Amino acid sequence: MTQTAGITITGVSGRMGQMLVQQVAEHAQTLLVGAVERSGHDWVGQDLGVAMGGPANGVIVTDDAAQAMRDAQAVIDFTAPAATLGFAAMAAEAGIVHVIGTTGMTEQEIAQLKTPAERAIIVRAGNMSLGVNLLTLLTRKVAAALDADFDIEIIESHHNRKVDAPSGTALMLGEAAAEGRGVTLAEVSDSGRDGMTGARKRGDIGFSAIRGGDIVGEHDVMFAGAGERIILRHIASDRALFARGALRAALWGQGRSPGEYDMLDVLGLGD
Amino acid sequence: MTQTAGITITGVSGRMGQMLVQQVAEHAQTLLVGAVERSGHDWVGQDLGVAMGGPANGVIVTDDAAQAMRDAQAVIDFTAPAATLGFAAMAAEAGIVHVIGTTGMTEQEIAQLKTPAERAIIVRAGNMSLGVNLLTLLTRKVAAALDADFDIEIIESHHNRKVDAPSGTALMLGEAAAEGRGVTLAEVSDSGRDGMTGARKRGDIGFSAIRGGDIVGEHDVMFAGAGERIILRHIASDRALFARGALRAALWGQGRSPGEYDMLDVLGLGD
Amino acid sequence: MTQTAGITITGVSGRMGQMLVQQVAEHAQTLLVGAVERSGHDWVGQDLGVAMGGPANGVIVTDDAAQAMRDAQAVIDFTAPAATLGFAAMAAEAGIVHVIGTTGMTEQEIAQLKTPAERAIIVRAGNMSLGVNLLTLLTRKVAAALDADFDIEIIESHHNRKVDAPSGTALMLGEAAAEGRGVTLAEVSDSGRDGMTGARKRGDIGFSAIRGGDIVGEHDVMFAGAGERIILRHIASDRALFARGALRAALWGQGRSPGEYDMLDVLGLGD
Amino acid sequence: MTQTAGITITGVSGRMGQMLVQQVAEHAQTLLVGAVERSGHDWVGQDLGVAMGGPANGVIVTDDAAQAMRDAQAVIDFTAPAATLGFAAMAAEAGIVHVIGTTGMTEQEIAQLKTPAERAIIVRAGNMSLGVNLLTLLTRKVAAALDADFDIEIIESHHNRKVDAPSGTALMLGEAAAEGRGVTLAEVSDSGRDGMTGARKRGDIGFSAIRGGDIVGEHDVMFAGAGERIILRHIASDRALFARGALRAALWGQGRSPGEYDMLDVLGLGD
Repeated sequence: MTQTAGITITGVSGRMGQMLVQQVAEHAQTLLVGAVERSGHDWVGQDLGVAMGGPANGVIVTDDAAQAMRDAQAVIDFTAPAATLGFAAMAAEAGIVHVIGTTGMTEQEIAQLKTPAERAIIVRAGNMSLGVNLLTLLTRKVAAALDADFDIEIIESHHNRKVDAPSGTALMLGEAAAEGRGVTLAEVSDSGRDGMTGARKRGDIGFSAIRGGDIVGEHDVMFAGAGERIILRHIASDRALFARGALRAALWGQGRSPGEYDMLDVLGLGD
Repeated sequence: MTQTAGITITGVSGRMGQMLVQQVAEHAQTLLVGAVERSGHDWVGQDLGVAMGGPANGVIVTDDAAQAMRDAQAVIDFTAPAATLGFAAMAAEAGIVHVIGTTGMTEQEIAQLKTPAERAIIVRAGNMSLGVNLLTLLTRKVAAALDADFDIEIIESHHNRKVDAPSGTALMLGEAAAEGRGVTLAEVSDSGRDGMTGARKRGDIGFSAIRGGDIVGEHDVMFAGAGERIILRHIASDRALFARGALRAALWGQGRSPGEYDMLDVLGLGD
Repeated sequence: MTQTAGITITGVSGRMGQMLVQQVAEHAQTLLVGAVERSGHDWVGQDLGVAMGGPANGVIVTDDAAQAMRDAQAVIDFTAPAATLGFAAMAAEAGIVHVIGTTGMTEQEIAQLKTPAERAIIVRAGNMSLGVNLLTLLTRKVAAALDADFDIEIIESHHNRKVDAPSGTALMLGEAAAEGRGVTLAEVSDSGRDGMTGARKRGDIGFSAIRGGDIVGEHDVMFAGAGERIILRHIASDRALFARGALRAALWGQGRSPGEYDMLDVLGLGD
Repeated sequence: MTQTAGITITGVSGRMGQMLVQQVAEHAQTLLVGAVERSGHDWVGQDLGVAMGGPANGVIVTDDAAQAMRDAQAVIDFTAPAATLGFAAMAAEAGIVHVIGTTGMTEQEIAQLKTPAERAIIVRAGNMSLGVNLLTLLTRKVAAALDADFDIEIIESHHNRKVDAPSGTALMLGEAAAEGRGVTLAEVSDSGRDGMTGARKRGDIGFSAIRGGDIVGEHDVMFAGAGERIILRHIASDRALFARGALRAALWGQGRSPGEYDMLDVLGLGD
């Protein structure tokens, strides 16, 4: 418990990379041992602290990711699918934990993680927030427990620069609800209600997208029945929580058997 | 204050009519003196209490509305536009308060209330809830106080049998917000957000419609700025509140000068 | 599924009894076959429908509970502890389902249900709402999944005539949270925060009681961590839902083995 | 409108001071021209940017406040009462805007602002958030519009390090509600409800304090009546908003007549 895990961060100059650096520095049980950027990036060769505009911290940014993983117990990786597959091979070589927050991976790319997962401990999640992952699990369970007498509505709020609706997390929650009911979301999804809609169709899962100000992200899953409602709500108020979730995954993975895991495993709630 | 007002109710067999009868019976300052239905309705000539499935209450349902208003201090009327115009003439004749909750009146029909309002005290509102009327006023004022750095979103929740979205009350609130900003709602309304919407357009007023269970009616007006949000919320949990608003209007009208009023006047908040 | 269950209701003149009568009448799968009141009550011997102030329904109120259970498949019982123990013996004799919503039973009285539960199917719960029971379960699970980095707060709102705070349901939720954490509620409960309280004590479970208007009952269980919150919320908007929960229990019990059950069993979520 | 206002900040090394520096730098219409700290502070004489741990910005921190106000159009001051009175005299001498966010001033100290306000434009507020000030105004108006049939409850949520309950802002809202009703808060305040409280007393104003995680600050003012509720809610999600409110006040004050103002004047809502 009191042992310290050495962490390497990929894509270290990005918004998420820098947030990870900060969180690793603040956490009592983690130590930054490697910082990776792509070849040619002007941070490569620089002291990371200086590159981030503060005092030197003694970690030199490198484009040699394999080398940077050599002294690490975990690599945290919010980059792009192709890069992530490369990092997975290196993490397997090093036999360490690979926390993957990279989004947009295809089914095929995900399948390619199978081989490295024979030697690496891979934890992968579309949303690293503990709370959102827990909410997803609860949504599936409640949807399974209640029948279609309870109307399911998913309401999300985000900042005014968000370009898509509903949010990816709202859709993930909708899929969890559909799965709990034994249907597919595509069959029952009702998004963007407007005009003469007619009465609500029994079994539908509705979506509402609220946009305004700088709201980080709020999600409600409402089950509305006769005379009562259950609402499962998640409020994210600080983007740093996604970095903290990744750290928790990195620590949880220490000493595990190689394989593929998700945040529900980290939470001790995997099926 | 301790005086009792005699009330006549039109359309007494309807859902709203019966709710009004009940509220008048429960209110210490009101007494039911007349019950009106259209000629040919099978309640006409019956004791109202018996017709409603309970004990007799001594009020005989009549199709002679003018007669039924003779001993009344107010008539409460949630019927249809044409009928309402007829009742307005009779209320003017009797010189009493005419509370109009009838919806769907055209601009032309509303204009025809001008003549009866020379002798009757007419209180007319699309929504008789005190809270919703107050919310409308607050929405206009807050929209006027804050500039377009604050994004306005209107979110409403109703039962699963509602066939239109957004609700009439949500649109009324949207109009109040637009008026406060000096724009028309049509220019800035954004309802039914779905798919690749792009970033929120500055100045837009967004609408979201949530449907589920037996929710009576909930309305949020959110003003979302940088680092803060103001939310004005109304929750209706009992349809009887619309009847109670009408009673309050009937009592408020006692002793007023003839003319046209709305619920903001009743609340003492008219401009 | 399409079979109809005959239901007997005890304490039929009470507020909950009358609500049960109404719900049984409205439900497609239930039929009222017995109505019980205590000896000497003036409803005994009368037609139940007439006694309730409406048309006759052919069920004569009786003080012979055993007789009233003879043709029933279930008895629903929201009375008092001593009466409930008597009814349990009769339900065992008849071999039917006994749904117990009676509150205030001591541990000793509850222990006395063991014998009748050898022959009756007993479903007992302090709160018959499906939603609240589900919320209790979720609260325990989430409290177990999250550590004390997440502060737990329970917030409840009720009407202005309620005389105690926090509500019994809030305490039930608090106990579920404490159980999930492996502590007892008494050790960590913090209710009625006021004045110079000092910083919140890690591990505490806080309670807030809001009172106003005619709020039926709302409960929030908040887990507040760094940068995120999970809120589990239940809103009761109609007291009839407690009657509906009892009916669901009565139908669920059909064909079960004798024994003691609770609403989590009815929901299919019992451990 | 396109003119730039030169701003001097006092107490520049403090948490609020540094936040103000950042906000002034980001705002298109403001320019930092002076940075003040008390004599002997080790920032005095240093470049402010460097002292803050970043690149130089050319503003040298000084302990000569009068000098630092010479080229400014406004001074923003979140310090302590005694210091603030000194700065007020200097701002009067310079004839500029003095934005005061200093808290804990006594009535006597406030009275001493009268003389400097003959030459300075003083804007003073206990909470510089536009939203909270607006909420206070709305609370007073709604409380005046609704009678004691509507129960008033004020609910606030803050982070787990807060040591007092209810929050100062909650009390400010309570005072606004009491003023709207024509009573004093002390007569009707009911905070920390717990145990056998008895039914809610008509006319009371209730307070609930929720503590958890890192919640910046949320305030609800609920008016709960029969069948309906109005809730006025403010959510602060970023402490920077208090700095932004101060900047808005500084810009609003340009060209005003000397005198004492508050944030409602800045909002254009002063009575």
